[in-house]
Amino acid sequence: MADVSQQQEQQPANIKPRQLYTIWLSPFARKIIVQMEEKKLPYTLVQERIWERRPAFMAMNPAGQVPVLVEPDGQVICHSSSIAEYLEETETAVSLLGNTPYQRAETRRLVAWFDQKFQLEVTRNLLDEKIFKRLMRQAEPNSATLRAGLQNIHYHLDYIGYLTEQRNWLAGETFSLADITAAAHLSSLDYLGDVPWADHMAAKTWYARVKSRPSFRPILAERMPSLPPSAHYLNLDF
Amino acid sequence: MADVSQQQEQQPANIKPRQLYTIWLSPFARKIIVQMEEKKLPYTLVQERIWERRPAFMAMNPAGQVPVLVEPDGQVICHSSSIAEYLEETETAVSLLGNTPYQRAETRRLVAWFDQKFQLEVTRNLLDEKIFKRLMRQAEPNSATLRAGLQNIHYHLDYIGYLTEQRNWLAGETFSLADITAAAHLSSLDYLGDVPWADHMAAKTWYARVKSRPSFRPILAERMPSLPPSAHYLNLDF
Repeated sequence: MADVSQQQEQQPANIKPRQLYTIWLSPFARKIIVQMEEKKLPYTLVQERIWERRPAFMAMNPAGQVPVLVEPDGQVICHSSSIAEYLEETETAVSLLGNTPYQRAETRRLVAWFDQKFQLEVTRNLLDEKIFKRLMRQAEPNSATLRAGLQNIHYHLDYIGYLTEQRNWLAGETFSLADITAAAHLSSLDYLGDVPWADHMAAKTWYARVKSRPSFRPILAERMPSLPPSAHYLNLDF
Repeated sequence: MADVSQQQEQQPANIKPRQLYTIWLSPFARKIIVQMEEKKLPYTLVQERIWERRPAFMAMNPAGQVPVLVEPDGQVICHSSSIAEYLEETETAVSLLGNTPYQRAETRRLVAWFDQKFQLEVTRNLLDEKIFKRLMRQAEPNSATLRAGLQNIHYHLDYIGYLTEQRNWLAGETFSLADITAAAHLSSLDYLGDVPWADHMAAKTWYARVKSRPSFRPILAERMPSLPPSAHYLNLDF
């Protein structure tokens, strides 16, 4: 996570930067953070303990989820796919969707793949089970659920390898929101040490390229209280 | 479902219309059908028995899901959110997202609400459990799952009522993809007779307005083989 006070110092004193409500290790918030970094947008992060269902936060987003973006004029934008499209529409100096309707459709297909299919088959079974289940419902992880997540991740890492053998980046020749979304999910699982990189060299090579981008630094700097990251989380040559 | 041969007859003989791969009662395919009807686009429907995982279909969409759109030039576009954005970008005579970035963000927030939150909490527990589980895995519905779906639907119908008390349509003053998405999910559940309209008058009034639009006729005409719709499915004054 970018240091909040540092971020604020980058701003002229009279302009309030946009705020992003986030919680540690949320792949959906990480996606927006990297997107804003790629576009070189100033922002501040607000940690929201979503499991407390704070009334003022629920009033902003009745779904009770992060990320939520609050613009300098006070407008509130909820849901990571809505925020991502909004930033693409309004901050156009760097495009992360692609230059043609077909290219954008391919980027969006892969964003949905990782935010929905990977999320249901892998992220939910590992990250939600180990971290958010404990925080939200004070329950222990279910071992069958964890096994399913650890099994399903291989198929997706193979798919990343397959795509990068055909293309420079996941959705085509240029770096896009598809790479950001896939890497956001994998980075949170990598924090837990749950990504079997050694079995998937093509995916590992792709991830090393994403990880070395300056836009990924706030992700690598994030620390969850009382849970240190896996040994290789920060290592660019893992 | 629109009659396939009728749809073809509307086309000049030398232009191949776009094809939409669908399956009965899929809310995600219904969303795209209504969107194309609102935009008055010609199309043909192709029924795809997705549980057979036909190799030629899996090659088009490795996720194995409908809808899939095939353009006259052969380009393939997968995933309902990717198709919806593509049609908004390329067929601009009728806009279903809204006129400002904030308005579009609000529409997309609600599209995601129904396609993801409502899908997980309601549609999956009822439609997937009753219909697709049988087709795909030859398994019987789980009664606890059905009960969860029937309980969760009340909260969402209340939310529709709340929104339509503040606004003309779900996302604002104009009919949008938010209305289409919510109505697509509810229409499939209504086919099964699983929507407790009598307890939610504001949501019922809103749905009656959606149901009476010409764009909704192919949805009301759809029939799943050997499963007739609920008694009031077709009735505009239900």
